[in-house]
Amino acid sequence: MNEGILLVLSAPSGCGKTTILRQVMAELPSLAFSVSHTTRQPRPGEVNGRDYHFVSVEQFKAIRDSTPSGFLEWAEVHGNFYGTARQEVESRLAAGIDVILDIDVQGAEQVRRNAAPVTVFIAPPSLAELERRLRGRGTESEESLLRRLANAEKEMQAADSYTYLIVNDHLEQAILALKSVIIAERCRQRQIL
Amino acid sequence: MNEGILLVLSAPSGCGKTTILRQVMAELPSLAFSVSHTTRQPRPGEVNGRDYHFVSVEQFKAIRDSTPSGFLEWAEVHGNFYGTARQEVESRLAAGIDVILDIDVQGAEQVRRNAAPVTVFIAPPSLAELERRLRGRGTESEESLLRRLANAEKEMQAADSYTYLIVNDHLEQAILALKSVIIAERCRQRQIL
Repeated sequence: MNEGILLVLSAPSGCGKTTILRQVMAELPSLAFSVSHTTRQPRPGEVNGRDYHFVSVEQFKAIRDSTPSGFLEWAEVHGNFYGTARQEVESRLAAGIDVILDIDVQGAEQVRRNAAPVTVFIAPPSLAELERRLRGRGTESEESLLRRLANAEKEMQAADSYTYLIVNDHLEQAILALKSVIIAERCRQRQIL
Repeated sequence: MNEGILLVLSAPSGCGKTTILRQVMAELPSLAFSVSHTTRQPRPGEVNGRDYHFVSVEQFKAIRDSTPSGFLEWAEVHGNFYGTARQEVESRLAAGIDVILDIDVQGAEQVRRNAAPVTVFIAPPSLAELERRLRGRGTESEESLLRRLANAEKEMQAADSYTYLIVNDHLEQAILALKSVIIAERCRQRQIL
């Protein structure tokens, strides 16, 4: 059996990543999400081991600080820790399951240092178009919108270091492109660079 | 405009390459075949510039022996020369058109030396299955069949040096895989190895 592919997907918010990923996962059932570890409290309805592995700060730090680190990537957000456990990912890859990580550009950079992922960046056609889409949602305060745009501009500077760049100009084409990347990577020979 | 992709497709005969390629070209109209040069005589119905560029031996050798060679690959078969002109390919790539070359493993090796192609090898599930398919056609003499199988075995030793390996186990999946390779390569960032 071939080892699965480790995919890292990043996109500024508002680029359609969630919609694209949901559709591709529906079309490619062999693709699995990694369940992250977190130190934050479970919300109502969240199931340990399905939504997150809920752990204490001590447990999190023990995994993080082992050698090599037990996390392929981790981050602290609003005082809580979040991480992608190496063992969680590697056991699935070994079983031939493709694993997709939906993480930001800093997380992607950490995964590159710890593993050999195939990385995909989804970009808006332009920052002006992204602003138009975010305003179109009508759910953002002006402050939140400006922060998202500033973040997007910063994240897009990292797009060049991704294996694949998908510009979400037309949603159907972006879905086809991500699906094609996964199918093609399954045929790509690893010894060839 | 992005430059087109140069694709090289090789497969032992009987692996379904022609069927796969015909279907993929029907689904991806932007994909172009390169028109080869040849010194053989046109057959009834063949049109110069569409089926082949029909040239004299002197013309062929002048293109072949220029520096750098005017051919990305060439071969002599049964006393006739066949070649893929560099200019023919490069002008299409420059216009953003993806070009596919349907050539054998020796031709593929020549193209690798002269350009940076994406190479795809289509393999049968096994040599036994290939023999079963060739016999199933009922069009081969025993001698021809054994020669094809010996050639296939030899060509499959070169499969490792291709960027992608597609095993034609199920025709529909092989068609999807080749189509996916082309769509994915359009998103693949060239500076990343």
